[in-house]
Amino acid sequence: MWKLPLTKFSNMRFPTPVALSWIAELIGAEVIGDEHALAGGINEIHRVEPGDLAFVDHPKYYNTCLQSAASFIIINTKEVSIPEGKALLVVNQPFDAYTAIVEYFRPFQPAVKPVSDTAKIGAGTYIAPQVFIGEHVIIGRNCRIQPNVTILEHCVIGDDVVIQSGTVIGSDAFYYNTKKDRENWYRRMLSCGRVVIEDAVEIGAGCTIDRGVSHDTVIGRGTKIDNQVHIGHDTIVGRNCLFAAQVGIAGATTIEDGVVLWGQVGVNKTLTIGKNAVIYAQSGVGVDVEPGKIYFGSPAEDASIKKRELVWIKRIPELWQKVMNS
Amino acid sequence: MWKLPLTKFSNMRFPTPVALSWIAELIGAEVIGDEHALAGGINEIHRVEPGDLAFVDHPKYYNTCLQSAASFIIINTKEVSIPEGKALLVVNQPFDAYTAIVEYFRPFQPAVKPVSDTAKIGAGTYIAPQVFIGEHVIIGRNCRIQPNVTILEHCVIGDDVVIQSGTVIGSDAFYYNTKKDRENWYRRMLSCGRVVIEDAVEIGAGCTIDRGVSHDTVIGRGTKIDNQVHIGHDTIVGRNCLFAAQVGIAGATTIEDGVVLWGQVGVNKTLTIGKNAVIYAQSGVGVDVEPGKIYFGSPAEDASIKKRELVWIKRIPELWQKVMNS
Amino acid sequence: MWKLPLTKFSNMRFPTPVALSWIAELIGAEVIGDEHALAGGINEIHRVEPGDLAFVDHPKYYNTCLQSAASFIIINTKEVSIPEGKALLVVNQPFDAYTAIVEYFRPFQPAVKPVSDTAKIGAGTYIAPQVFIGEHVIIGRNCRIQPNVTILEHCVIGDDVVIQSGTVIGSDAFYYNTKKDRENWYRRMLSCGRVVIEDAVEIGAGCTIDRGVSHDTVIGRGTKIDNQVHIGHDTIVGRNCLFAAQVGIAGATTIEDGVVLWGQVGVNKTLTIGKNAVIYAQSGVGVDVEPGKIYFGSPAEDASIKKRELVWIKRIPELWQKVMNS
Repeated sequence: MWKLPLTKFSNMRFPTPVALSWIAELIGAEVIGDEHALAGGINEIHRVEPGDLAFVDHPKYYNTCLQSAASFIIINTKEVSIPEGKALLVVNQPFDAYTAIVEYFRPFQPAVKPVSDTAKIGAGTYIAPQVFIGEHVIIGRNCRIQPNVTILEHCVIGDDVVIQSGTVIGSDAFYYNTKKDRENWYRRMLSCGRVVIEDAVEIGAGCTIDRGVSHDTVIGRGTKIDNQVHIGHDTIVGRNCLFAAQVGIAGATTIEDGVVLWGQVGVNKTLTIGKNAVIYAQSGVGVDVEPGKIYFGSPAEDASIKKRELVWIKRIPELWQKVMNS
Repeated sequence: MWKLPLTKFSNMRFPTPVALSWIAELIGAEVIGDEHALAGGINEIHRVEPGDLAFVDHPKYYNTCLQSAASFIIINTKEVSIPEGKALLVVNQPFDAYTAIVEYFRPFQPAVKPVSDTAKIGAGTYIAPQVFIGEHVIIGRNCRIQPNVTILEHCVIGDDVVIQSGTVIGSDAFYYNTKKDRENWYRRMLSCGRVVIEDAVEIGAGCTIDRGVSHDTVIGRGTKIDNQVHIGHDTIVGRNCLFAAQVGIAGATTIEDGVVLWGQVGVNKTLTIGKNAVIYAQSGVGVDVEPGKIYFGSPAEDASIKKRELVWIKRIPELWQKVMNS
Repeated sequence: MWKLPLTKFSNMRFPTPVALSWIAELIGAEVIGDEHALAGGINEIHRVEPGDLAFVDHPKYYNTCLQSAASFIIINTKEVSIPEGKALLVVNQPFDAYTAIVEYFRPFQPAVKPVSDTAKIGAGTYIAPQVFIGEHVIIGRNCRIQPNVTILEHCVIGDDVVIQSGTVIGSDAFYYNTKKDRENWYRRMLSCGRVVIEDAVEIGAGCTIDRGVSHDTVIGRGTKIDNQVHIGHDTIVGRNCLFAAQVGIAGATTIEDGVVLWGQVGVNKTLTIGKNAVIYAQSGVGVDVEPGKIYFGSPAEDASIKKRELVWIKRIPELWQKVMNS
């Protein structure tokens, strides 16, 4: 029986492990370290794992990258100390090198028909007219995919999933390399991750869920999402969450099981919202939220503190009066 | 001449009135009361009418449901006092019974073509390429339906209506039965209501308007809606309203005639915003708003009070200074 | 080599200059001034240029319109003093006259196929399945237009542009003539402008960019836009801007080069946000922002002032205590 590969996120793995010397030739790099070592895949810095390649091009982040789980660092300097068992791939433009590797292993494949021949669709699943399903998409059983939905290449959808009209699954990450000394400041990191949607998830109309840059964006089992919700790249959403309409979640954030986000909530990138936390409508979450907490406000904080604060604001005129009369 | 059936909202009516005994057999219920009584339709609790079935499964809401306009209550207890002229249908799982009735009368019909043969489209109406129009949709005269619009089954559109690209009319309600002692906490209430859009309404691009759960979502004559607006299930919008971009309105709310909602306003569920009220941009409306009032803030309150409050906040440092110097 | 016509915005120009007497006959107007003068095009008041027609129907705006760059004023009075070198076209209903002129020169052309034969698409550009491309659209080279994108008539897209799924380019402006003494209060201004997207712009999924009413909506070179962003009619966005998800910008606003808008920011109409300004998430911009400034809050103000204010609010209880104890 087909099962979602969720115990291990399937980021941008190479088909087989690849010798560092081969990678070095592809990107024109000098290897410092063991050139016979084998790389398993490539990842951006937030989601690297042992055996991965990662890249860094700014001195400010050299150390973070070297100390990350990545085994092989594409970098534009030799003047760093290399942690035990790691290797450097030294190039002038690490970003271009990253792009070249991704393009080699995941070349852009233009779709030629609305529903790709390489897509696998489970028994009992209804695909409405005018749905787009890209290459290598996997959809489970008993799903309902409504008209004008777009499911882009390599995305994985579980069983009993509902996706309403106009929703886009697997759009590219909004993730750029910035250099203000060139004509176009921003260059896109190619997205080679996927979107993985577990069983019994329901997604409303007009939503957008970006694929991971090099990892997966995951929506956990039983989570329900209202209309016009945006979920950024590499975000991991737990099970049985409830997101009301027009919620927006930036990239690489973790939303644990049972979290409730009310309408128009915004969540910043690379945060964690703990299990069963509740965020009231229109709040802007800019910090981690502990499990079970209720948050409110923009910027959001503990709802009971925020509510007291609103009462205190109402008392300023009274306070003014007291001071004037004293 | 075809006219919109707006004097009486056409919720989930049965084709003909149905004997309670027949319903009881369908859902395996014990009838307490007159089993020869005839039920006209089924409705969720916010919009029930005499002759309707409704259901309740939590003791907290038993009384609300029994005292509602519903004539026949699907319930999981016998230990309640039954109002004069009403009857109970006792089952273990009222939610499952509700679902079974809806599925019997409104079985899911997979669309097989982009524009259904059962849809009726008035003279002078332009349907662009790549529009989806579901079963039993009715569209009036001289409308303009732009590319990539989705109009789902049973929705009704008046004359002189404009719907811009990417908009979805008739997506399912975001309305769940919650029980945290099962693997998947949330189970969707099937939506058997419609969206009814009156004459001269104009709807922008990328909007989503959910159908009613058991009733209709209605957009009143002459109302104009900007891009990326979300309107929840069973919401009734009056005539000549103006909603700016990215407004979100939750379910079962009533917006009276002439209301103006500026950009990114959020409105909570089951509220009433009175005639000609104006809500300033980004406000979050969590309480009823009286006719003619201007509201602002998140949470929103009377705009003149809110503006004074913003001035008072600016005076805290001055107040601090006074206290320090006294 | 094809180049974007960006030095001069191509608003609603007539094919050749048109004699005022001919226009007068078309709309049944009395000419006050030189009826042999030649009009070059028609524009709404925010974007008029010399040689243009403009219209005004409310005494409150007579003077603004007469003193604007417009050469020829469609107006419902003779009791105004006419600036040197200008002429009036006097009618009872200037709005209807404006509509008649636009409809004559830009009659509605129903699309009959998903990709129009009059569209021009550059070499190396990929158009995915289920994309709609309207009449007279121009798309440059090496673009990627993803599934279920809608690009409406007359829009112009540069080279190396990416547009992700579900996005709508060229929807009509949300811009109405209001009169509350008729059954339908709001009548739409016909949109005869375009959307012009310069080279190397990237636009996320589920965005909506409205065409100008009589001018162009412009997205400058190298600007990157995340998912579910709304940009109103006649807005001019500079180069190398960065807009995060769910940003909304109202009509006829100017965003200068290098501006960063974080998630869910709202920007009011007809403002200017200066070069390299940064607006923090969920802010509501209701006033002009000077170049290089950082703004925050709803309503937005200088972020350092706003942050101090948040600290002052936290100190109210302490202040209260001091006053009570004094």
